[in-house]
Amino acid sequence: MLIPLLSLLALAQATPPASSPAPLPSDVAAQDWRPIPDDELLVMTLTGNRIVVIRLAARFAPQHVANVRTLAKAGWWDASSVYRVQENWVAQWGDATEKKKLAPGVVETPAAEYEIGAFTVAQRLSKPDSHSTASGFSADGWPIATDGKAAWLTHCYGMVGVARGPAPDTGSGSELFTPIGQSARRLDRNYTVVGRIIEGMKYLSALPRSDAAMGVYATEAERSGIVSIRLASDMPATERPKFEYRSTDNARFAAYIKLRENPAPPTIGSGGVELCEVPLATRSVPAK
Amino acid sequence: MLIPLLSLLALAQATPPASSPAPLPSDVAAQDWRPIPDDELLVMTLTGNRIVVIRLAARFAPQHVANVRTLAKAGWWDASSVYRVQENWVAQWGDATEKKKLAPGVVETPAAEYEIGAFTVAQRLSKPDSHSTASGFSADGWPIATDGKAAWLTHCYGMVGVARGPAPDTGSGSELFTPIGQSARRLDRNYTVVGRIIEGMKYLSALPRSDAAMGVYATEAERSGIVSIRLASDMPATERPKFEYRSTDNARFAAYIKLRENPAPPTIGSGGVELCEVPLATRSVPAK
Repeated sequence: MLIPLLSLLALAQATPPASSPAPLPSDVAAQDWRPIPDDELLVMTLTGNRIVVIRLAARFAPQHVANVRTLAKAGWWDASSVYRVQENWVAQWGDATEKKKLAPGVVETPAAEYEIGAFTVAQRLSKPDSHSTASGFSADGWPIATDGKAAWLTHCYGMVGVARGPAPDTGSGSELFTPIGQSARRLDRNYTVVGRIIEGMKYLSALPRSDAAMGVYATEAERSGIVSIRLASDMPATERPKFEYRSTDNARFAAYIKLRENPAPPTIGSGGVELCEVPLATRSVPAK
Repeated sequence: MLIPLLSLLALAQATPPASSPAPLPSDVAAQDWRPIPDDELLVMTLTGNRIVVIRLAARFAPQHVANVRTLAKAGWWDASSVYRVQENWVAQWGDATEKKKLAPGVVETPAAEYEIGAFTVAQRLSKPDSHSTASGFSADGWPIATDGKAAWLTHCYGMVGVARGPAPDTGSGSELFTPIGQSARRLDRNYTVVGRIIEGMKYLSALPRSDAAMGVYATEAERSGIVSIRLASDMPATERPKFEYRSTDNARFAAYIKLRENPAPPTIGSGGVELCEVPLATRSVPAK
C-alpha cells in the first residue's frame, strides 16, 4: 500500500536532511559528465538479478586491475559468493574455499600498489583529517589523501580493496572487499584499492551480518551467490551498461564542496568535510 | 554446512584485519567496566525477537531523554516500525504516519540540545579531524568534539539522533534515527543526540534500503515491525538486560587509542584515528 502523499510530506518534516546521493541537475554542467571506459566497469551479478557495478581504478593499481580483468575474462568468479559480512567493517567476496586455482595469466603476488604516484587532485578539501595532512579528489573523481610524502586512494565506504595475507603479500585480486561501515580508513596504505562501487552498493551493505569469527559466514547457506563477474567490455552490446562520472575539475564541483563545508544557515557547518562523506556522482546512460 | 576449520584458517590469511569490535580481556582491567543504570537502557524489540539495545545519553540531552522515557513507559512505540532506511545515511523508526498523538507528559518541542555544556574528555585524540579542532571520549565512553567554543556529541555510526522538522523545532524524540553509513557527521550541532546503539546494530544496518524519496519505504510491507520499546528499569527483573561500559579514564584505554593511532609494524599508521572509528566497548552481564 502506498503511503499517501500527505503523509510523505509530513515525514519529510521530521527527517534528517537528504543525503544528496545525486547532485541536482542544475549543479552539474553537461560537460562535467565524462564516460567511464567499458573495460573499467566490472559488473557483478548476484543471484536474484541484483547488479553491482564497480568502477576500476585502472591507472592507480594497474597490476591488480590487470589480474581482475583476467579473472573476469576467465569467468573465474562464476558461482562464487559473498562469504563474509562483518558489522561496521567489510563485505567480502570471491572463492570462499580460497583453494580454487587462479586463472592462467593471473600474477599470484603482484607488487604492492598500496600507494599511488603523487597527490594530484583537482579539488583539495579545506581541512586536513585525522589520517592525512591533505585530501581531495582527482579530476576523474577518486578520493586521494597524502601525508606530504606519500599519496594513496582511501578506504571510504564503497571503495573496493584487495584482501590479502600478511604483508608483503598483496593478494591477487581474486578476493575483494568493500567497507560497509565507518571504520576502514586504517586500511589506507596497507591494502590495494582497485575500485569503487558505483551502483548496487545497497545489495552488499544490507546483507545479513555474521557473528562468526571475522564475520565469515559459518554456513554455506548464508552466502550470497555470485552468478558472474564480467567486464562491461566483454558483454554483448545490448546488455552492456554505460556509465559516466562527474568530473571534479570545474567550478560546479568546487562550489559543491564549498557548500558541504559551509552549509547555508540555519544549518551549522564546521568549515570542513571529511573526504569519505562527499558523494561522488556517477550516472547510468543509455547505450549508443 | 560448517566451513572446515582449515578453510577458516585459510580465509584468515586473506582478509583485512579484524575490526576489533571487542577489546581483548587483557586490555581491560576489571575496574574499567562500570554499570549502565537500568533507566539509561532502552530495549527495542523488533519482530522475530531481534533485540536492539540503546544506551541513553541522559546527562547530555536530559529533556529529550525525559521524553523518550515517557514514551517508553506509555508503550507509545508498541506496534510502530522502522519505516525509513536510506543507503549510506540513516535507519529511522517511530510512527510512520507521524500523526499519532504523543503520550501525556511528553514535551512536544523541547529546547534544542544540539550542544553540550563543555568539552570534558578523559582521552583526547592526537589529531583534529575535518569537523572539529579536538575530539575524544568522556570518561563514561561518549564521543565528543569541540571547535574550541562549543562542544557536542557526534553523529557516529550507531549513535541515535532525534529526527525533527525545520529548526528551531528539535523534535520530541518520538522519531529516532541512527547513521548506517559514513556520512552523518554534518548532522553534528544540528540534531540532538540521545544515545548510542550498544547491541543489535546489525538488525538495523542490514535492513533493505529503499529507493523511494529520502529512503522512506514506499509500502507498509517493507517496514520492520517494532513489537515494543521499554526502559530496562521497567522490565521484569528476570527479563531485564544488564550492561556495563568500558570507561576511558584509565591507562588501558589510553594505550588502546595510542595503538590505534600508531599500529605495530608492518602495519602503516597515520599517527591519528578518527573519533568515529574507535569501537566503544560495552558488555552484557548476568543479572544479579
